[in-house]
Amino acid sequence: MDLRALAACQHQVDIDLGERSYPIVIGSGLLGDPAVYAGLPKARAALIVTNTTVEPLYAARLQAALAPHYPQVHLVALPDGEAHKDWQTLNQIFDTLLGQGCDRKTVLFALGGGVVGDMTGFAAACYMRGVPFVQVPTTLLSQVDSSVGGKTAINHPLGKNMIGAFYQPQLVVCDIDTLTTLPARELAAGLAEVIKYGPIADMEFLGWLEDNLDALLAGDKAALAHAVKRSVEIKAWVVSQDEREGGLRAVLNFGHTFGHAMEAGMGYGVWLHGEGVAAGMVMAARLSRRLGLVDEEFVQRLIRLIDRAGLPTRGAIIASRDNAGHYLQHMRVDKKAEGGEIRFVLIAEPGKAVVRSAPDSLVREIIDVCCR
Amino acid sequence: MDLRALAACQHQVDIDLGERSYPIVIGSGLLGDPAVYAGLPKARAALIVTNTTVEPLYAARLQAALAPHYPQVHLVALPDGEAHKDWQTLNQIFDTLLGQGCDRKTVLFALGGGVVGDMTGFAAACYMRGVPFVQVPTTLLSQVDSSVGGKTAINHPLGKNMIGAFYQPQLVVCDIDTLTTLPARELAAGLAEVIKYGPIADMEFLGWLEDNLDALLAGDKAALAHAVKRSVEIKAWVVSQDEREGGLRAVLNFGHTFGHAMEAGMGYGVWLHGEGVAAGMVMAARLSRRLGLVDEEFVQRLIRLIDRAGLPTRGAIIASRDNAGHYLQHMRVDKKAEGGEIRFVLIAEPGKAVVRSAPDSLVREIIDVCCR
Repeated sequence: MDLRALAACQHQVDIDLGERSYPIVIGSGLLGDPAVYAGLPKARAALIVTNTTVEPLYAARLQAALAPHYPQVHLVALPDGEAHKDWQTLNQIFDTLLGQGCDRKTVLFALGGGVVGDMTGFAAACYMRGVPFVQVPTTLLSQVDSSVGGKTAINHPLGKNMIGAFYQPQLVVCDIDTLTTLPARELAAGLAEVIKYGPIADMEFLGWLEDNLDALLAGDKAALAHAVKRSVEIKAWVVSQDEREGGLRAVLNFGHTFGHAMEAGMGYGVWLHGEGVAAGMVMAARLSRRLGLVDEEFVQRLIRLIDRAGLPTRGAIIASRDNAGHYLQHMRVDKKAEGGEIRFVLIAEPGKAVVRSAPDSLVREIIDVCCR
Repeated sequence: MDLRALAACQHQVDIDLGERSYPIVIGSGLLGDPAVYAGLPKARAALIVTNTTVEPLYAARLQAALAPHYPQVHLVALPDGEAHKDWQTLNQIFDTLLGQGCDRKTVLFALGGGVVGDMTGFAAACYMRGVPFVQVPTTLLSQVDSSVGGKTAINHPLGKNMIGAFYQPQLVVCDIDTLTTLPARELAAGLAEVIKYGPIADMEFLGWLEDNLDALLAGDKAALAHAVKRSVEIKAWVVSQDEREGGLRAVLNFGHTFGHAMEAGMGYGVWLHGEGVAAGMVMAARLSRRLGLVDEEFVQRLIRLIDRAGLPTRGAIIASRDNAGHYLQHMRVDKKAEGGEIRFVLIAEPGKAVVRSAPDSLVREIIDVCCR
């Protein structure tokens, strides 16, 4: 084994939230290593929550790694996909916990992507009013975004992530190896959230992404580990400033206001979350441009990178009549909206985001231009 | 108006939980007084959550008192009773919030008993990951117990209060006048939780209850206000020491381990919560006696007071065969159980509680003696 190569893809990032602080470990071969889980709270039982796609790939390996630490390691495999991020599926976790007589020291492990992580985290927040949990994200999107920061939720028919909690994990284990089994479409969708960190916080990182995009798409582990590490560092810094999304944290939603409207408008699961975010970033960048905040070269640079990643650069058409009106309607029920006023995350200057409102007429214009 | 009499039934108790501190106001005529709600967070909308029994009695009055503070005051009336403390009913609150386009500054008001309070609090904890809420308890039980301390939850078919959150209200408004419309059975059930505070914390208060029980049962407002105030003071002290039930707080569950088993065993709603607690206190007192912690005179004194209040002093029979076995089975899935070991709240000496386990054989004996 080349130890230098190994060292190059082993990282640790600490999320500083006082007594709710926790480490994120990033690297190769972590998921199946019992030593990774040695410092967790002791309990009689652990429950691995995964989905039917991830289970055959990694569940047995995680189960074996947890066996030295917990007398009982239970497992529940949920149906796969955003369409199942609902109460009914969440309840499968509670049914398993109660059916197995799990007490309130039980540790939950979320093994899978963002949907599994969000649901497991919310189940952990609610089960007996709170049990410890660990994120073991197996998709790029969940490694760089959803598994960090403690946002957990399920969807409601009238809105995405409407029912949830701020609840921090004990540990996040980002095993880069799991990204090699990821379908190309999902890897690309994850890159949308990676790309996001450039415009909002670090244009040097955007340059690095432009230089290393081919390596990332080819599954180069050192490149992936660096991309995950830098994304997580930026997110960790933002979250530690604003755990409960009072202000600053909203910048992490660059591209999400438009993206959520597309996801809700088409029905959850038609586009991947990252695909909505990708097209949403283009729309938010165009709105920033229209407001005179950035120049056309910045918009084009972002579009080129998103396009190279194989992601949509045009918004989805969610209604055959009055498409823009439908977007606005969805965006008004977004959690970020206040008093019916939509709050957009815009680029104030390359590398810096700002949250502000915009006139409906302008937003309609952008939607009409971007959704063709 | 007799101002001395008024002063005698106006109290304020502060719950000290750092940045989550809040006041409990106790008195006559509070519910409909706009001044009571003046200090709450500003918002475009408020939502009153109540049930179909309480709505015709108090909803219009609360709505009028909130109108000066919130441009929109929405209302949702849930079906009444513990049997409806489930996800389906909780979802009616989310449906209303999302259907009305309520944003994450919306303030929720729980107008009703413990079930309404628990569900509204849990909905507030989860809606958009947390919105402010206010408790306006209209039953004795909820005024002295469930509305104070931030425990919120719904039931699961396999256990009571299994899904919930610790989430503190902004304010608790205990309007003593609402107790005058309470059915006698519910007033008595509330007294079970009032009586509880004697054995676990304050034998002087138990003496006061013995002297004033007739006044309380007759609906004397000054007596009720004092009983609520003293109960809330004791609970506030315990909760401020142990917000998330790490240890001390468990003493508040005196009578509840047996009580929950009865409620679950018979099906929620057959007995009122306070009725289960009453019989459960007798069983826990007998277990304390059997372990040599208290004398028979203490047990008899407690039984006499519970009996005078019109509450059950015998445990319910929840299974025609192996009744004790069924109790044990229910108690093992209780949240307080750890690693399958049941934790009983016992009386170490009159006025002082202790949490400990007991041999199954002894517990079976107590159940057999108490459930005849």
